[in-house]
Amino acid sequence: MDSIRVFAPATVANVACGFDIFGFAVDNPGDQITLTASDEPGVRIIDIIGDEGRLPREAGRNTASIAIQTYLKQINRLDVGLDVILHKQMPLGSGLGSSAASAVAGVFAANELLGRPLPIMKLLPFAMEGERIACGSAHADNVGPSLLGGFVVVRSYQPLDVIRIDTPANLFCTLVHPDIEVNTKDARFILKNEVSLKNTITQMGNVAGLIAGLMTPDYDLISRSLVDVIIEPVRSILIPEFNEAKQAALDNGALGCSISGSGPSMFALCRDAQTAEQVGAAMQQAFLSVGITSEAYVSQINKQGPKIL
Amino acid sequence: MDSIRVFAPATVANVACGFDIFGFAVDNPGDQITLTASDEPGVRIIDIIGDEGRLPREAGRNTASIAIQTYLKQINRLDVGLDVILHKQMPLGSGLGSSAASAVAGVFAANELLGRPLPIMKLLPFAMEGERIACGSAHADNVGPSLLGGFVVVRSYQPLDVIRIDTPANLFCTLVHPDIEVNTKDARFILKNEVSLKNTITQMGNVAGLIAGLMTPDYDLISRSLVDVIIEPVRSILIPEFNEAKQAALDNGALGCSISGSGPSMFALCRDAQTAEQVGAAMQQAFLSVGITSEAYVSQINKQGPKIL
Repeated sequence: MDSIRVFAPATVANVACGFDIFGFAVDNPGDQITLTASDEPGVRIIDIIGDEGRLPREAGRNTASIAIQTYLKQINRLDVGLDVILHKQMPLGSGLGSSAASAVAGVFAANELLGRPLPIMKLLPFAMEGERIACGSAHADNVGPSLLGGFVVVRSYQPLDVIRIDTPANLFCTLVHPDIEVNTKDARFILKNEVSLKNTITQMGNVAGLIAGLMTPDYDLISRSLVDVIIEPVRSILIPEFNEAKQAALDNGALGCSISGSGPSMFALCRDAQTAEQVGAAMQQAFLSVGITSEAYVSQINKQGPKIL
Repeated sequence: MDSIRVFAPATVANVACGFDIFGFAVDNPGDQITLTASDEPGVRIIDIIGDEGRLPREAGRNTASIAIQTYLKQINRLDVGLDVILHKQMPLGSGLGSSAASAVAGVFAANELLGRPLPIMKLLPFAMEGERIACGSAHADNVGPSLLGGFVVVRSYQPLDVIRIDTPANLFCTLVHPDIEVNTKDARFILKNEVSLKNTITQMGNVAGLIAGLMTPDYDLISRSLVDVIIEPVRSILIPEFNEAKQAALDNGALGCSISGSGPSMFALCRDAQTAEQVGAAMQQAFLSVGITSEAYVSQINKQGPKIL
């Protein structure tokens, strides 16, 4: 095998109550990467398709190539040459884990191309290193679920402790990306450094309820627990029509609805595909009523993580 | 049936990471109550055994009788007469849910004596009313597990949302009550009203990890998650030798160890009975090394709640 093409899923981080600790992967959208072995050692970005020229082409600055370089260094294979073509298939800076998907696709593809020297779980730190370049910090709440699939808890960073949680077979996700931009660093900057003990207790109750609801499974409990009293009230002001779009989702049968990652995308969880489609249409309509166009994606929770195409 | 004797279990609230939201019941210790039907309407405390005269004998001020009175009023049976004998079988003000056990025993016994007009889940608000008298607020993290058995999450108070979590069959609890006193109101008073966002995130990760660990079950995950970065660092200063007793528990194989409720009792969770016994002895020895005597209790997690004797 001297060439490989890999898909890695988009991800929803935070998931209402679980700021910085929860994330899940979806089947759609996601990024694709093509790696081709080369005789010349090193990692090169040959082309990036679908980013409108916005992502860096230098291998030392691109999320995917940095993840691959870090991986090759770790397994002591700096003799390897890889040519990278990245197919961006989702909006950038959208809160859908775009950089995480590229990093995961890259490092997963390299590991497969080399005959899988490392088990998949061990690839996480390299994908996180790619995230560090994109976001300024090595978060795992997007790369974790993109790499492992499913719903993930990042329990701790020191040491890194990432736990995969079973989800109900029929859980569907609606993603709506309004065509506006929120800078991740801004979204983090406006958060307060202190939380009231009362809100901490409320949020912990919802965190516990969501995990129990997913594992039982208990859709009503999932629904009651998809509430964020800490982050959403602050960050939602950056998203025009947030309240209206959320209400539209709930009115149309969503179990819950909140900001995806640091926004501006929003996610909703639903009991079935039909409800998820209806929720997406209603949310898009809410944005459109103030002249904001959007893309909607509906899929099941992705349980597999990256896959070879 | 004109007389009934009921046992209700002691409980561990907070459970390290779950301040105000987690609690579980144990098989030992617990309180017993005897109710005898009387022709004279109203609830009377006939005797309290084992409290060294410290609990109020007036029916309008006693936790158990208030819970029963509130219950009788709700089911519109103020014609009923009940004579109460309370057998306190655990230390008062100890952080073991002593008042909750009395309230639960009382209201459960009354409901059984009257032919169970209400399902058990519906008794919770009346037991909480008893707690309000004892603690100044109607908390559910002790009465919840004492009434329902097992491990309980109080997800929300408005509306009341109490969720029962499955626990591993072989999970054992060690309780050690040092013979010192901590006032619950003091223990609450020293807490800060604000929590750093960083600590909130860490605590949420442990809350999620503990629920996932209990439900999977995964003892190592339970162990890693039994960490409290918010409450324990503040409240533990009220318990002499806390750090030494905790370290002794961990050194002897406990999965985790922290304050039970608002203290001064401490709890440890263990994989088996033998470890739990050993942990109890080591913790008692730590207290004894500075001249503090203590009682130790070892039992499985109580899965049944109150029972008729």
